[in-house]
Amino acid sequence: MNSLFEPILKKIKKFRDERDWKKFHNPKDLAEAISIEASELLELFLWKTKEESMEFVKNKKNCEEISDEVADVMVFLIEFCDNYSIDIEKAIEKKLQKNAKKYPVNKAKGVATKYTKL
Amino acid sequence: MNSLFEPILKKIKKFRDERDWKKFHNPKDLAEAISIEASELLELFLWKTKEESMEFVKNKKNCEEISDEVADVMVFLIEFCDNYSIDIEKAIEKKLQKNAKKYPVNKAKGVATKYTKL
Amino acid sequence: MNSLFEPILKKIKKFRDERDWKKFHNPKDLAEAISIEASELLELFLWKTKEESMEFVKNKKNCEEISDEVADVMVFLIEFCDNYSIDIEKAIEKKLQKNAKKYPVNKAKGVATKYTKL
Amino acid sequence: MNSLFEPILKKIKKFRDERDWKKFHNPKDLAEAISIEASELLELFLWKTKEESMEFVKNKKNCEEISDEVADVMVFLIEFCDNYSIDIEKAIEKKLQKNAKKYPVNKAKGVATKYTKL
Repeated sequence: MNSLFEPILKKIKKFRDERDWKKFHNPKDLAEAISIEASELLELFLWKTKEESMEFVKNKKNCEEISDEVADVMVFLIEFCDNYSIDIEKAIEKKLQKNAKKYPVNKAKGVATKYTKL
Repeated sequence: MNSLFEPILKKIKKFRDERDWKKFHNPKDLAEAISIEASELLELFLWKTKEESMEFVKNKKNCEEISDEVADVMVFLIEFCDNYSIDIEKAIEKKLQKNAKKYPVNKAKGVATKYTKL
Repeated sequence: MNSLFEPILKKIKKFRDERDWKKFHNPKDLAEAISIEASELLELFLWKTKEESMEFVKNKKNCEEISDEVADVMVFLIEFCDNYSIDIEKAIEKKLQKNAKKYPVNKAKGVATKYTKL
Repeated sequence: MNSLFEPILKKIKKFRDERDWKKFHNPKDLAEAISIEASELLELFLWKTKEESMEFVKNKKNCEEISDEVADVMVFLIEFCDNYSIDIEKAIEKKLQKNAKKYPVNKAKGVATKYTKL
């Protein structure tokens, strides 16, 4: 179903099932986990300016830390998609089409204003 | 680089670049966006029990709402990986190996205890 | 201004100023910090059912951990209010009045539905 | 118990109890609510630089929006403290003492480094 993730999904499920963790993985707790891991990624940039955050990602010695946090979010997100039959490619295409209506190019170009205020 | 996302990445970048939004997309703000969108996904399950969350995802009429929120998180996560040269497959494999050490099967099997307390 | 917090505010500011940290405390980063700390509070309940979360808070040996996470969120929230002249009592009263309109008793009683779907 | 919040707590509980919402308010869901509301506060500063976030809070016409989001976080946090008998003043004092050890002035002064890397 989520052909995009097929290569990596098997490893994610193997890790989970060896630990008998599927019983903990309902939609509510997986969404909590995604949010908590996303917050850990954000923490890497806390108290940094935009410019400092750009320097931080360029520095090779921070690569692993960043990759690790991104991976943690992605692992739960991929499992979420697999468990609840979300075709992520289709989901993204559909959402981009909706966003295109919320943020028409002529209004949204070059500004970061939320669509409710455009 | 992120061959896993090649098919969908082009559409994500087209959407962003048509709106001249790349200038807003530094690591700090992208991490904020990922966290904020993850929180919107979580909100779908707020005040629901685990069981109710499972009913919620099974109900066809909630599918679109769930897919939309998952897509929002994924879009920013995919862009993050692309911008900062994270090979997500490698990142996940590496992280699963680390997690396997933090959560050895014999200790972690069937329990949801954090590794710091195992 | 925030008379509610007067007794504790002095200690929070002393801690911050001894470390010369005010320079990092702009609205964006304080909001990030509040969100990150809130996420750490949430992590205490990850993978737990509603009932298990109720057992967890009753257990004396978890008290300190919970108090610590709540304190972390509160410290940044109190500083945010102080820095940007938010009278938290007035802010809460005003917001409760707005919420009362969004969630009229006759519609909202006993249900956890979001106001957009009431 | 939480004398700090006595004046406002009554109004928060009245709002909740008129709607018969106490049944939804367990530790797990309250922590989710705190995290979700904190994320909405953060969203006000998304895509803004540090400097723009400082301009944003100074502008009178944004005051209400900011106060509203802060209030939302605070309402759930105050209820959390009340429900689970957390004396917030004591909790903050205790946590500041712990943080003082994690971040000794001579090491932490003027730098935003996490204690694990100090």
